[in-house]
Amino acid sequence: MTTAIYPGSFDPVTYGHLDIVERAANLFDHLIVAVAENMVKRPLFTAAERVYMLKQVVTPYRNVEVDAFEGLTVDYARRRGARVIVRGLRAISDFENEFMMALTNKKLAPEVETMFLMTRAECSFMSSRAVREIAYFGGCLADLVPPVVAEMLRHKFRQRWTAAGEG
Amino acid sequence: MTTAIYPGSFDPVTYGHLDIVERAANLFDHLIVAVAENMVKRPLFTAAERVYMLKQVVTPYRNVEVDAFEGLTVDYARRRGARVIVRGLRAISDFENEFMMALTNKKLAPEVETMFLMTRAECSFMSSRAVREIAYFGGCLADLVPPVVAEMLRHKFRQRWTAAGEG
Amino acid sequence: MTTAIYPGSFDPVTYGHLDIVERAANLFDHLIVAVAENMVKRPLFTAAERVYMLKQVVTPYRNVEVDAFEGLTVDYARRRGARVIVRGLRAISDFENEFMMALTNKKLAPEVETMFLMTRAECSFMSSRAVREIAYFGGCLADLVPPVVAEMLRHKFRQRWTAAGEG
Amino acid sequence: MTTAIYPGSFDPVTYGHLDIVERAANLFDHLIVAVAENMVKRPLFTAAERVYMLKQVVTPYRNVEVDAFEGLTVDYARRRGARVIVRGLRAISDFENEFMMALTNKKLAPEVETMFLMTRAECSFMSSRAVREIAYFGGCLADLVPPVVAEMLRHKFRQRWTAAGEG
Amino acid sequence: MTTAIYPGSFDPVTYGHLDIVERAANLFDHLIVAVAENMVKRPLFTAAERVYMLKQVVTPYRNVEVDAFEGLTVDYARRRGARVIVRGLRAISDFENEFMMALTNKKLAPEVETMFLMTRAECSFMSSRAVREIAYFGGCLADLVPPVVAEMLRHKFRQRWTAAGEG
Amino acid sequence: MTTAIYPGSFDPVTYGHLDIVERAANLFDHLIVAVAENMVKRPLFTAAERVYMLKQVVTPYRNVEVDAFEGLTVDYARRRGARVIVRGLRAISDFENEFMMALTNKKLAPEVETMFLMTRAECSFMSSRAVREIAYFGGCLADLVPPVVAEMLRHKFRQRWTAAGEG
Repeated sequence: MTTAIYPGSFDPVTYGHLDIVERAANLFDHLIVAVAENMVKRPLFTAAERVYMLKQVVTPYRNVEVDAFEGLTVDYARRRGARVIVRGLRAISDFENEFMMALTNKKLAPEVETMFLMTRAECSFMSSRAVREIAYFGGCLADLVPPVVAEMLRHKFRQRWTAAGEG
Repeated sequence: MTTAIYPGSFDPVTYGHLDIVERAANLFDHLIVAVAENMVKRPLFTAAERVYMLKQVVTPYRNVEVDAFEGLTVDYARRRGARVIVRGLRAISDFENEFMMALTNKKLAPEVETMFLMTRAECSFMSSRAVREIAYFGGCLADLVPPVVAEMLRHKFRQRWTAAGEG
Repeated sequence: MTTAIYPGSFDPVTYGHLDIVERAANLFDHLIVAVAENMVKRPLFTAAERVYMLKQVVTPYRNVEVDAFEGLTVDYARRRGARVIVRGLRAISDFENEFMMALTNKKLAPEVETMFLMTRAECSFMSSRAVREIAYFGGCLADLVPPVVAEMLRHKFRQRWTAAGEG
Repeated sequence: MTTAIYPGSFDPVTYGHLDIVERAANLFDHLIVAVAENMVKRPLFTAAERVYMLKQVVTPYRNVEVDAFEGLTVDYARRRGARVIVRGLRAISDFENEFMMALTNKKLAPEVETMFLMTRAECSFMSSRAVREIAYFGGCLADLVPPVVAEMLRHKFRQRWTAAGEG
Repeated sequence: MTTAIYPGSFDPVTYGHLDIVERAANLFDHLIVAVAENMVKRPLFTAAERVYMLKQVVTPYRNVEVDAFEGLTVDYARRRGARVIVRGLRAISDFENEFMMALTNKKLAPEVETMFLMTRAECSFMSSRAVREIAYFGGCLADLVPPVVAEMLRHKFRQRWTAAGEG
Repeated sequence: MTTAIYPGSFDPVTYGHLDIVERAANLFDHLIVAVAENMVKRPLFTAAERVYMLKQVVTPYRNVEVDAFEGLTVDYARRRGARVIVRGLRAISDFENEFMMALTNKKLAPEVETMFLMTRAECSFMSSRAVREIAYFGGCLADLVPPVVAEMLRHKFRQRWTAAGEG
């Protein structure tokens, strides 16, 4: 049985991430979507909130588990017995960072393999950062994130809108 | 009549930005150079200062207006009746960010078009960040920004030089 | 009245090109889609065939004309009184070639402006080269090119299939 | 049981390709290294020679098969019952071409997944093209290709050296 | 006699930096490895610590000096009589930033030349940032930095491990 | 005394190449501009013509020699006792090819160093290919190549213009 992990900050999860989850779930027996608690400095959502949202949206996939971890990704992979790290590639700058991370991880844990999937064209422009910004200014999120995430984002920014008296 | 906006942080405006202003002013009936107040976290210049500097340097162009805005660029474009967003491209990393922003904006406002001009070769290395750093250390700004901007930068950093007793 | 040209080899036209045509037709009074006869060494389709296919697919746009030309693009732009050259950007390698071409053209004809649109995400992977290869091996073209182009491609490769007794 | 194919021109196979073979053989039950007969116009080695060299160098891997095919990669994948296409990524330009190919293949065969591995740092500069050029001029191939490939290259270029009276 | 400077933040020095030092030391009569005090906002190591580590690792090279400086690199180069600035290139994103910096420096000091060396393939994935992160989580540093740097990193993060009671 | 070679196809030499020649001539005692006879398949100019043009334009530099060579660049460097290969970088795609070439050359000849200079911004869009195309269609070459090269290009293409009755 092959276990793979799909690590990320997922702050929040977008349809682009879900595309990767669906495709990786088809390739491996067991897929762990793993919220990296320390990947970003000041996340918008707590690790618990990010895990909650992911759990809501991966229910259609039987072999997908959601978890959170601290520390090096390769150490987490070893702890969970995962032989594969899955990552999505969207753009050139992704490519470069991922390339360096993959080679560093190979040095630290030669038995763990990093594998890449290209994000579907329709999702290639989606980023959690853009989603946060659009939500902050009350823009439409319907094509970018699942309904539960849109709701959490609205809730997160409600106080601001209420206070400012805007839409 | 076609109205276009040229949004940016302009912190401060450089000769590279002015190159784009001049060329876009030739293509459209009305061009709004729009200072995005929230594009950068801690700008060197206030939005009012950035608008002031832009107003000084766009006086040669009859159909160019300077403004500031908060919120999503596409919302501002709609409010101003602009069908076109103009952006300058200098380098590969610009390309990628701009590509994602343009596709996201297209999703949010399909009727607004983003259009790119390539910055002139002689200006391709100019960035507001480099200008701020050179000004901070008292380097020569003559080839990078208009005189009024150089003066504002010197004024902004004067206290530092005075306090530190340096050149 | 602003006239723009959209030059290319269009060997053959894809839905990616049509996306640019539609958007540029909205921005300018008159758009000339211009088949560059000498842009590729050994095209699959003759210039006349490429013009024919383009004419079929641009009929919905009232202000779009199809033409063919030989020689430098800027010379053609001048002859036609076009102040704008429109180009689509899909990928990083496009960016670089286009950047060099735009700066060279600016040197040769300072009064002609090159303007870029980003190809829609859904079309970002489409290339005439891939279309030709897929057609050659009898693959499905429905999502990549308009029906008239698919028909022309099938016709072009029919002899091969007949001779080889395949598909 | 998961079958994967690793298609390429392998003209000739390098240590960079072998790195990918070894790692993909660890991830999947059955790996088919598939020589694409039509991927390059005028290959240095015939498809039969390329298959021969590959067969020599993959003997250590029990679950690896070598084959050759003509036509679209996705059609070959379907014929062989492969759910996965494996590709190696070395550099940015690889990234772009591979990205377009992967998205095109996804359109043609949604049930086949393309998966990428990053070539090990030590092999990141190796290309079949460079190998051919170095062999042509009699340069040292020991760090770039397995001995059997070096021998085949020497043999291929022997007539030239003999005729020219060089090295 | 040609003097060159190799400026950087070196927070901390990696084997990738040492590769550049060794090669530049072979090309020039006198090489100054120069810690730029203001290049990063909140360095992990003080400038004094970074100079100390560099001094330990450059002892094999007779013509290499270690120094620290504040202000513009070109001003420092002029003060030290250096005609050459040496920089290492690892990846595309390096390329872009370096390109802009080199052109800006050329504008500020036309008589100073910036020269680039490509980091050896085996070191191409090493970055000070990755080193800091791996050290923070107690990962293995043996292939990435010299022993003295690994020791300094362990010392820097010891309190954290002690306090948290982790490995 | 340090000898450097600046290899290339120079088909023909442009102001961009001359920028690199001038700067490299300042850095090294002896610079050999070396026409690589086999770098391109069907050059526009013979190696002798390319050497002739280069000799005309490097006369201002006392320490610059022009030569031609066949075979691997590192073998030529060794024959000439050159410790340094100089190359110009203009664009991202240059970067990648150059990176691979430099690492391959390092493998073949560890004692030869490849060093890069960034082409001046004003020349960053110049390529021999664009120059040949512009010359072919009778476009203006004054800003791109020295007068002797423009004259050679006009002569090369004269028959075409005469025959076609154009320009």
